[in-house]
Amino acid sequence: MAEDLKRRQRSGGRAGNTGRRGTAVIEQMPWAPPINIDRPVEPLDEAGVAAIHDGAMRILEEIGIEILNAEALEVFRASTGCTISGTNLRMGRDFVMEEIAKAPETWTITPRNPARRITIGGRHLNFGNVSSPPSYWDMKLGRKVTGTREMCANLLKLSQYFNCIHFVGGYPVEPQDIHPSVRHLDVLYDKLTLSDKVAHAYSLGRERVEDVMEMVRIAGGLSHAEFDAAPRMYTNINSTSPLKHDEPMLDGWMRLARRGQGLVVTPFTLAGAMAPVTMAGAVAQSLAEALVAVVLAQLVRPGAPCAIGTFTSNVDMKSGAPAFGTPEYMRATQMTGQLCRFYKLPMRASGVCAANVPDAQATWETSNSLWSAVQAGAHMVYHAAGWLEGGLIASPEKFVMDCEILQHIQRYMDPSLTATGPDEIAVEAIAEVGDQGHFFGIQHTQDRYSTAFYQPFLSDWRNFEAWEAAGGVWTPQRAHQIVQDILASFEAPPMDAAIREELADFVARRKSEGGAPTDF
Amino acid sequence: MAEDLKRRQRSGGRAGNTGRRGTAVIEQMPWAPPINIDRPVEPLDEAGVAAIHDGAMRILEEIGIEILNAEALEVFRASTGCTISGTNLRMGRDFVMEEIAKAPETWTITPRNPARRITIGGRHLNFGNVSSPPSYWDMKLGRKVTGTREMCANLLKLSQYFNCIHFVGGYPVEPQDIHPSVRHLDVLYDKLTLSDKVAHAYSLGRERVEDVMEMVRIAGGLSHAEFDAAPRMYTNINSTSPLKHDEPMLDGWMRLARRGQGLVVTPFTLAGAMAPVTMAGAVAQSLAEALVAVVLAQLVRPGAPCAIGTFTSNVDMKSGAPAFGTPEYMRATQMTGQLCRFYKLPMRASGVCAANVPDAQATWETSNSLWSAVQAGAHMVYHAAGWLEGGLIASPEKFVMDCEILQHIQRYMDPSLTATGPDEIAVEAIAEVGDQGHFFGIQHTQDRYSTAFYQPFLSDWRNFEAWEAAGGVWTPQRAHQIVQDILASFEAPPMDAAIREELADFVARRKSEGGAPTDF
Repeated sequence: MAEDLKRRQRSGGRAGNTGRRGTAVIEQMPWAPPINIDRPVEPLDEAGVAAIHDGAMRILEEIGIEILNAEALEVFRASTGCTISGTNLRMGRDFVMEEIAKAPETWTITPRNPARRITIGGRHLNFGNVSSPPSYWDMKLGRKVTGTREMCANLLKLSQYFNCIHFVGGYPVEPQDIHPSVRHLDVLYDKLTLSDKVAHAYSLGRERVEDVMEMVRIAGGLSHAEFDAAPRMYTNINSTSPLKHDEPMLDGWMRLARRGQGLVVTPFTLAGAMAPVTMAGAVAQSLAEALVAVVLAQLVRPGAPCAIGTFTSNVDMKSGAPAFGTPEYMRATQMTGQLCRFYKLPMRASGVCAANVPDAQATWETSNSLWSAVQAGAHMVYHAAGWLEGGLIASPEKFVMDCEILQHIQRYMDPSLTATGPDEIAVEAIAEVGDQGHFFGIQHTQDRYSTAFYQPFLSDWRNFEAWEAAGGVWTPQRAHQIVQDILASFEAPPMDAAIREELADFVARRKSEGGAPTDF
Repeated sequence: MAEDLKRRQRSGGRAGNTGRRGTAVIEQMPWAPPINIDRPVEPLDEAGVAAIHDGAMRILEEIGIEILNAEALEVFRASTGCTISGTNLRMGRDFVMEEIAKAPETWTITPRNPARRITIGGRHLNFGNVSSPPSYWDMKLGRKVTGTREMCANLLKLSQYFNCIHFVGGYPVEPQDIHPSVRHLDVLYDKLTLSDKVAHAYSLGRERVEDVMEMVRIAGGLSHAEFDAAPRMYTNINSTSPLKHDEPMLDGWMRLARRGQGLVVTPFTLAGAMAPVTMAGAVAQSLAEALVAVVLAQLVRPGAPCAIGTFTSNVDMKSGAPAFGTPEYMRATQMTGQLCRFYKLPMRASGVCAANVPDAQATWETSNSLWSAVQAGAHMVYHAAGWLEGGLIASPEKFVMDCEILQHIQRYMDPSLTATGPDEIAVEAIAEVGDQGHFFGIQHTQDRYSTAFYQPFLSDWRNFEAWEAAGGVWTPQRAHQIVQDILASFEAPPMDAAIREELADFVARRKSEGGAPTDF
């Protein structure tokens, strides 16, 4: 509390902050996760949806999925609909459909600040930061370096700062200066103190998952019962394509399922590598792998909140390297969206690119992936800001650039843009101006000009001469300056000092106990 | 003929060219104007479409449009549906709908190479080069300079080279080293000899329009009757918003209408400047201005092939500068698409940006505008490659970068991407690989790998280390190199020597006659 107070006195209180913020850093759009008002883009007709569904069901019925988790196998074995042979699990389509029908079509996640609650499902669209790159690149360094806790914290600050980032995914960069046994403790402490948005746990071992759930509970000031009553956080697991679920991922999945937390399963089905070279086949395989996890969650806790993620893309057939934001990627995302609606399950997609630096290629690839997520009707868009090199690099400049695109999407979904009431058709204003005048001066414009149009924070709309006179700064350099300004003036969201102390104590205790076991 | 033969001998004939081209320059997609298989994005419901239509009709009925062309006024006066007061023209909605119903829903333009015929209407999607910037920028210059004939010719070569450019719009940069009195003669000579794609005439005075029609006729080896029988070229006119059509534009419009050539009318309605600050109002005004021209064309020649263009965007309310590729721009384009379908008229849109250099901002703005044209169901996309600074700058690097996006769109529209036959669902291939293998080696992949995925010519999909080892080249620098390679190996499409001579003679004669009158 004392720390909180001191901070407030120094800064002139929250109102003071707001005022200074307005001048010190960018003008951004308010927190308002978009409602996707567009009809999804649906490349498949009914027969196409049925064909992919049938493919996914045949994979589950005839080929089966490897389940490398003994406990999960026992759960499946206890149900009537499964056939288990060694670690191979098969199940019939009626059973699959019956089980997944228990999962809610829409669910929420409530972080420590309830005003930051997000809804997964329906028409809701939520964006999350880049997660899990091992490396980092920024304009000042100009080279790829290993991620550190400081870089990670800075990206967490950007995630908190931007209102168009609605949830905080995994580590925005892997802080490799922290030993893996205690990395989750330090990063979650940073995440939960620097941000009040929805947090995530990696399903990478019992201790990590349990520690993160406990830290999220403490940060929220919740009892265990309160924590268990509704999703307060989530995990995202990946199958090991083709056709395999690994031990730790399913362990974390079941732990969160038992406690009613959010569950996202995202197979990484690169067409031509871990999945068929044909996009419909890669989507069918991805769905089969995902649905097994959804069934498992329903067996563990009927009604557990699940979402299906897509990470279907294609490889570069010349080099085998993954490609992102390609035409094939866009269509796979849209097809997955159709199947998610068929299964009545929420959907996760991504903002991704193969580019190594925040240039035009990075932008067209990321823009293609983000807009295809929107067109697919996705509810969670992971990696929506900051991703480079197929997820191997996190970049703060790219983060800021992507936020400009995310704001475009938010604004694009504002129904006022396409309103057609008499005030919008504005025949009287057109008559008033006639064929000689200019619309800027009239009352109809003056009443609306400050909110009529999207105001970018990064795009420079000056003409060439004015832009050149101001230094001729290209987009990534402008983004670099904005990053510095945001970090210099960043203020963490308020947290009760007692909670902060409890969190710190928990971290200290778990560190003294050795954290999570590692083999090194 | 001799010249043609000599060129062929030097180069080893057409087959020789093709072979060398394959190694010397990029691998690009074939000539195949996309068929837009997506359902358009339609933000308006039926009432919204009706409201904008009613607004457009009220503008025509109650306010009227200034017609600053005496001949056009006489044409309108001779019809029963118009009310003329001085230069103010009003018309009732029944009359408008009756007249525009005479315009075809779909029409074609056939250039001198009939294999380059394009279809305007239906599901057809055609892209054209940047047109009309006074200035030029490239990476080597690094600054904005006045356009020259050489720059213009180089951009015409790019327009011919790229198969994803389907028609050649206006001058890709204004060659200001040629006097305006004869500029159209030199540029059209360059255009018609360097390219065999659909050409365009500026409606900027009787002599220019007649000269260009004559040159297109000569280049096509056509009789006057053959030229008049079907569209061989087109013009694009702009109204002088708000609510005005100028003399030369309508003059050219009527000249092309009489000869059955293609007609595109594109009001430039910047919301908050020349049109209401509300997007629906700006769209309604744009449509009213456009429909007057369509009616005029039908009065001059019933059935004249027309298309409605949109250039509705918003201004930056801080500076008054035009903005492009904004969320408002996207929605205005989509709304215009809905109204074009309501009027059963083909549609033109654009690929535009406000950015001054080919960076990330240029890419997100251009990508937004190009994809919104696709979503709107546009049939012609002007300025689809090479545009910067709100149309004040043409850039060859931007041209090449935009062609990568255009190829994305072409590939995205390939129905094979979302095919769902048994071969695509590929359950057998999935069974064959099982849970341990890799898909690359199997027959299902080998049968398809060379054509399964989009192959970029500009995106670099190598990992960071390989990319860095190759010089760490960012997108615009890569584009710069591609420009040099294309220009160095460019070969003009074949043209009969007699036709080339006739064209040159025509240019010489018209120059000796003084070209088009100017006041300087």
